Amino acid sequence: MTPLILITNDDGYASKGINALISIAREFGDVVVVAPMSNSSGLAHSLTSSRPLRVRTVSDDDSCKVYVCDGTPVDCVKIAEEHFCPRKPDLLLSGINHGSNASINILYSGTMGAVLEATVMGIPSIGFSLLDHSPDADFEPSLPIVRKIVGGVIEKGLPPGVALNVNIPVTADGVIKGIKVCRQSSARWMDSYERRVDPHGRPYYWLTGRFDCDDNGEGTDQWALENGYVSVVPTTTDFTAYEWLNFKID
Amino acid sequence: MTPLILITNDDGYASKGINALISIAREFGDVVVVAPMSNSSGLAHSLTSSRPLRVRTVSDDDSCKVYVCDGTPVDCVKIAEEHFCPRKPDLLLSGINHGSNASINILYSGTMGAVLEATVMGIPSIGFSLLDHSPDADFEPSLPIVRKIVGGVIEKGLPPGVALNVNIPVTADGVIKGIKVCRQSSARWMDSYERRVDPHGRPYYWLTGRFDCDDNGEGTDQWALENGYVSVVPTTTDFTAYEWLNFKID
Repeated sequence: MTPLILITNDDGYASKGINALISIAREFGDVVVVAPMSNSSGLAHSLTSSRPLRVRTVSDDDSCKVYVCDGTPVDCVKIAEEHFCPRKPDLLLSGINHGSNASINILYSGTMGAVLEATVMGIPSIGFSLLDHSPDADFEPSLPIVRKIVGGVIEKGLPPGVALNVNIPVTADGVIKGIKVCRQSSARWMDSYERRVDPHGRPYYWLTGRFDCDDNGEGTDQWALENGYVSVVPTTTDFTAYEWLNFKID
Repeated sequence: MTPLILITNDDGYASKGINALISIAREFGDVVVVAPMSNSSGLAHSLTSSRPLRVRTVSDDDSCKVYVCDGTPVDCVKIAEEHFCPRKPDLLLSGINHGSNASINILYSGTMGAVLEATVMGIPSIGFSLLDHSPDADFEPSLPIVRKIVGGVIEKGLPPGVALNVNIPVTADGVIKGIKVCRQSSARWMDSYERRVDPHGRPYYWLTGRFDCDDNGEGTDQWALENGYVSVVPTTTDFTAYEWLNFKID
């Protein structure tokens, strides 16, 4: 049977990245896209329950249906399976994100929120991100990588409960050295809120930040990316810190 | 030095749960509260970057300052440290949530989003949740548990990078048998979107759901809660599925 591939993202249905991903997915199967209306970056795993969702049909092509939803990336995955897919999807693809979701960025990422939601629903799932924030980022050099990973997962599947967080570097010479399966490096955003005062004398605060990572040795996703490799982190939805299960609370 | 305790939640600064938590925290140190204006349940780890934040002072008591922020629980933690705490907090407490954050609920939880953000920032951090969704939930029987766990963590600290996800059961006879350190059980929400049609003929979709967990054997948080124990899951921000690092992508 032709694979059914569900696609979403967090940059919105009109972004370059999702359209690059759709072009690859169509080589492998029938495609249903349910994506946010507009930029939903930083929405992480948030979902909408206090108001109802609206969904609009953008394209009703038999082999590639496109819908736009006014919810979060997680909402898109949830509502897609029940109302907009003819059957349970064989694969969920999210992205291609404009910007990195490696290291601690996974925690804030709407792209990866959608991926983890599909994983909980029992759908094999991959998030793709390119290390270029620009709306006009060039996704062309990423396409062979995306094709290879999607093809491999369709052929061999994924372990139950495990998703892939794939990040693709932008290299000076355009050459990508290969693919590394690696662990999430430890890092943080050194955030600062710039305080301003409005014309009425009241303060408001703008988020600014700088990525700070010193856990970039070999074996980490940061190492792979800084050395011209695609990073693939096998990712779980189990937050348990197993090495501390013997922790004594009293 | 008197410990400095930062408090937030996702139910909003006026909820019963956060006020119960504040009352316990004040027994142990100076308290700064930066909490969302209104109910922010289901916001997970989302943060606000597309608009600036506003913060309003509710109470300026020397030993307990209370601020309300129009952002997410994660925003509250981020902005609190830089602009509303006299120094880096010794402890972050989030909750007491009205409703469970055990098992897969951690993925959607604003309460635990705040906890994990503080963990990334290097602040020992605990999330508390009571298994009662009601705005009028009775937090009184939870207070000795909260006191015990907060006291223990202030005395002994937490392992670096590890937070605690504490869930407190509601038992028929009011008796809590004890505290179990356990792993996050695997579960999912069986969601359904109820389709309705508005007076203008356009569909809209309301989220409804049923919690579905069959991973509730001894050693899981679900087992502890169903058997009258408080569950404490040591929790990490590392999503790597380590047992699959040898996964072959091609």
